[in-house]
Amino acid sequence: MSVIVGYIPTREGRAALRQASEEAKLRNVKLIVVNSHRGGRDFDASEAQRFEEELAKVQADLDAAGVEHEVRALVRGNEPAEDLVGVAEESDASCIVIGLRRRSPIGKLILGSNAQRILLEASCPVLAVKAGEND
Amino acid sequence: MSVIVGYIPTREGRAALRQASEEAKLRNVKLIVVNSHRGGRDFDASEAQRFEEELAKVQADLDAAGVEHEVRALVRGNEPAEDLVGVAEESDASCIVIGLRRRSPIGKLILGSNAQRILLEASCPVLAVKAGEND
Repeated sequence: MSVIVGYIPTREGRAALRQASEEAKLRNVKLIVVNSHRGGRDFDASEAQRFEEELAKVQADLDAAGVEHEVRALVRGNEPAEDLVGVAEESDASCIVIGLRRRSPIGKLILGSNAQRILLEASCPVLAVKAGEND
Repeated sequence: MSVIVGYIPTREGRAALRQASEEAKLRNVKLIVVNSHRGGRDFDASEAQRFEEELAKVQADLDAAGVEHEVRALVRGNEPAEDLVGVAEESDASCIVIGLRRRSPIGKLILGSNAQRILLEASCPVLAVKAGEND
């Protein structure tokens, strides 16, 4: 059993990572952080660095709680949704944790296409979280 | 703190109820089952009866585990999404559990409008589950 979360260096990504680590501790199962980010135009170096720091903190916290964890880098050229759903199936996941953006740049509420795919295609439960004010 | 689930007498509704009761036990918080079903053309008496039986079983299970629970009937004339998000806010919910249909009648993967609203409007995490083969 495991809890799966995608690595995304954004506010939503950090919120998802934090929630996923709580879920792994609560369920006492392994946390698998899947990194299928492909860089490119959305890549923000300062966000990525902040995320690395957050990840180190989460890992230290899981170590202290005795909860197993791993970071898995996937370079299969898949959409992130495919990678997450695939890893969840391979590792008999208790749940996948995803971050949702609260509003699009023009203020409209939307669900991103990756989020929709994961919600619809995952066979395990999917926990969707939003970024808080401090993320 | 609490776990919130909407009452819907369908396969997805039963899957959500079962998962919500597991989450309430895991987190050791109250389970609130919100009944904002308005009857009408979607009402299926045999599904509703099966759901009542499932609910009784879940309640007995929560009693045995010493986890508080309540069924709250809301007749505010709201959309179910509004009721669920509202109750979640009033009761400082740990999460809302919703059931997703795997496929529409024509086989297309879709997210229902209530599910989308809850995912986007809830300030707490939302756990989305699908019906299994035995639901």
